Amino acid sequence: MPEDEAILPHDELLRAVEAEDPSAVLALAEDTHYADLAKAYQELDSDKHAFFLKTIGPALASDMIVELPDSMIEEALDVFSPSELRVLFRELSDDDRVDVLQDVGDEARLRFLGLLGPEDEELTRSLLKYDHDTAGGRMTTRIGRVFANQTVKQAIEMLRRSQESTETLSRIFVVDDRGRLIGKLRFRDLAFNTWDTPIRDIMREIGPERVLATADQEEAANMLLKYDLIALPVVDEFEHLLGIITHDDAMEIMQEESTEDIEKIAGIGGEQSEETYLNTTILTQFRRRAGWLTGLAFVSILSGYVMMRFGSILSQVFLLSLFLPMVVAAGGNTGGQASTMVIRAMSLGEIDPGTAWQVAWRELRTGFFLGLLLGSCMAVFTVALLPLFHMPMPPGLSYFKVALTVAVALTTQVTSATFLGSLLPLGARAAKLDPAVVSAPAIAAIVDVSGMVIYFTVARAILGL
Amino acid sequence: MPEDEAILPHDELLRAVEAEDPSAVLALAEDTHYADLAKAYQELDSDKHAFFLKTIGPALASDMIVELPDSMIEEALDVFSPSELRVLFRELSDDDRVDVLQDVGDEARLRFLGLLGPEDEELTRSLLKYDHDTAGGRMTTRIGRVFANQTVKQAIEMLRRSQESTETLSRIFVVDDRGRLIGKLRFRDLAFNTWDTPIRDIMREIGPERVLATADQEEAANMLLKYDLIALPVVDEFEHLLGIITHDDAMEIMQEESTEDIEKIAGIGGEQSEETYLNTTILTQFRRRAGWLTGLAFVSILSGYVMMRFGSILSQVFLLSLFLPMVVAAGGNTGGQASTMVIRAMSLGEIDPGTAWQVAWRELRTGFFLGLLLGSCMAVFTVALLPLFHMPMPPGLSYFKVALTVAVALTTQVTSATFLGSLLPLGARAAKLDPAVVSAPAIAAIVDVSGMVIYFTVARAILGL
Repeated sequence: MPEDEAILPHDELLRAVEAEDPSAVLALAEDTHYADLAKAYQELDSDKHAFFLKTIGPALASDMIVELPDSMIEEALDVFSPSELRVLFRELSDDDRVDVLQDVGDEARLRFLGLLGPEDEELTRSLLKYDHDTAGGRMTTRIGRVFANQTVKQAIEMLRRSQESTETLSRIFVVDDRGRLIGKLRFRDLAFNTWDTPIRDIMREIGPERVLATADQEEAANMLLKYDLIALPVVDEFEHLLGIITHDDAMEIMQEESTEDIEKIAGIGGEQSEETYLNTTILTQFRRRAGWLTGLAFVSILSGYVMMRFGSILSQVFLLSLFLPMVVAAGGNTGGQASTMVIRAMSLGEIDPGTAWQVAWRELRTGFFLGLLLGSCMAVFTVALLPLFHMPMPPGLSYFKVALTVAVALTTQVTSATFLGSLLPLGARAAKLDPAVVSAPAIAAIVDVSGMVIYFTVARAILGL
Repeated sequence: MPEDEAILPHDELLRAVEAEDPSAVLALAEDTHYADLAKAYQELDSDKHAFFLKTIGPALASDMIVELPDSMIEEALDVFSPSELRVLFRELSDDDRVDVLQDVGDEARLRFLGLLGPEDEELTRSLLKYDHDTAGGRMTTRIGRVFANQTVKQAIEMLRRSQESTETLSRIFVVDDRGRLIGKLRFRDLAFNTWDTPIRDIMREIGPERVLATADQEEAANMLLKYDLIALPVVDEFEHLLGIITHDDAMEIMQEESTEDIEKIAGIGGEQSEETYLNTTILTQFRRRAGWLTGLAFVSILSGYVMMRFGSILSQVFLLSLFLPMVVAAGGNTGGQASTMVIRAMSLGEIDPGTAWQVAWRELRTGFFLGLLLGSCMAVFTVALLPLFHMPMPPGLSYFKVALTVAVALTTQVTSATFLGSLLPLGARAAKLDPAVVSAPAIAAIVDVSGMVIYFTVARAILGL
């Protein structure tokens, strides 16, 4: 299996580092993909990091360092001398260089910027202006770019000259004489046409597939996905071609955004960043979870308050305790399901603001049917099974009345919780908040309170307590 | 803004269809990307579908139909006559054709297979053997493939002949004379070398970047992401090159798998498929959620049973009701956070079976600190604020003792729930189950029961009830 072949050199590499054998390390590192080098690096004891980096040298280390978790980058760079760092930064593509510089401290960033050549420094500074999570912050400017009024021969010569500094020639973009994006080409379109063909004649028009530099990175990734692109052009408001976002950036963005959504829905705060689970310190884990937990705990005291106020009802009919946690939890579960569905659909761009009411109406009906199902189940359970256990029942009450109470309370609770679970993320977006901040635990805490009120109110009315 | 430009023709197209103006529809459709055509199609009234498809014809419709939700595909294909369908299937790439045929009924699949030419039919049948969610089920066989013993000139001629039927020439793969994968090339490597250069001299070796046809699609997508590839070669167990998985497939796979994880974590069952939220019927939504909801409701009755059994404690000290929902909910929240973290890290391949104990130990500590924090907060709240409300307190009890009860119960509940939340997904994987089936609501339901037991046991011991 290929998987196994990949693992062997990795273990060998780790052993060679442990043995501090520079020539073996270098030979193995040269044959290893930078993504695997980064994995091996993270498995090393940290006192071997400097030896490893010095041995493989700045050129080999450059791509590997980009793949490291954010928190390990500055430490790795500090191993190298200024002249080695110059080599390392020259090896990096412009977007990787910007990524790396965004992950180090302010002092280090200034120091590293000073090591770049004047041209690279200016380019890097201009890219650092864009936020990390915008299209501009993720783009590379090293693109295959030709002019519409060139011939195939002129275009190929221009591309050949810039070959070394180009991220991908899989897509070549065509601009007019003022640098505005007007078309695209594939390399084979050049290769399979005669040398005097004008570019304008063989280029294909670009439709809506482009993104503003200031747009959110998620918009760019969704567009790459929607239009099956290898590279998405990034433009300014005058349609000037600034750079491209490539398919591999888009996959990273999607991975990050999905993880962020998942974590937010579960009530985990703070920025996800590129840290892996095992590389995050326990303190960070603690911080990211403590906020929501504490906040929700205080909301839960409201539920407790309602329960305390209605406590006399429970002590009159002990049987009501049997269903209380269920009515409350069913609301949390169904509300969480609804909000998760809606949040994910919004992330995937499936819900426009215009269809928000349609969504709420769907969820209201789904909630009602779910509530009816659960309510009927529990009513049947109460009437058919509970009498077998000979529960003590106060005079004037019957299993039938208890069943009715549970059924009505459950239907009401599940319907309202489902509806609320869909409304809150929609409302968050309308208020320009990230819909995913409406986490499932937050909805559960809110509908716990309403569940208590619903259950006790229904019980009072039906049982006449 | 580019976004706006994209919307205008889309509305125009919808209007032209409403007006049943064939020449306007055709002209607009020709200028619209197939992904946007698919979006417009879904917004049409279903009685306009046949008119729309007939107007744009099978060639334009082919790529659009691939983008439709699974449930709409068969209906769309049935609009066309057998001879039109022949054109349509010829236009599709092999992997898209297989996708489409996987989404229609058995009867329709046989009928459509009979329309393919003998060569296409054989290829399609061989691809249909692989499960939809394996690398083989997602690959295309239309790849740029050259032989190591060819010259650049021979290779270019071979590629030129197969140009029409090739999905991407961005990556060209090199095989030996027995068809085994040994290297790769970029198109520009051919263009920028002299014609008599042997391919063997300019090809680059392939490292671990390949996947078995029978491997899970998620493994393929993760590998494309890890190695930043445009195309990942798919091989059989003898290293024969069978096809490639392209970057756009990988993005779709990742999107699907992330959505599936999110939904499972929220306790939503059934297959995610390629349906969008608004295209799913309410009945399907109901079915996917009802199972978990009903199951969990019965688990919650256990919580109710514990509450009923200990009910006399609550009626002795009403104040205990105030904290009961909070202790219970805190466990559900922290357990859900822990399981979500662990499930996502497993999906991203960050946790090996070997590091499972490390994960559990991390979560045990994180849980303990979270419990300690929450417990202290609530103890301070009890001692400092509650006396202001003059709660009725039975003789022999004090706010201090109640605070101690709450603090000890919370710390125990949060620690055990966090630990359990990490253990359950790890256990599920050890039992060869999908870790994501251990949904957050399931963990909440389980730790609700333990929370009740913990709270009442601690209260009995400390308050001497």
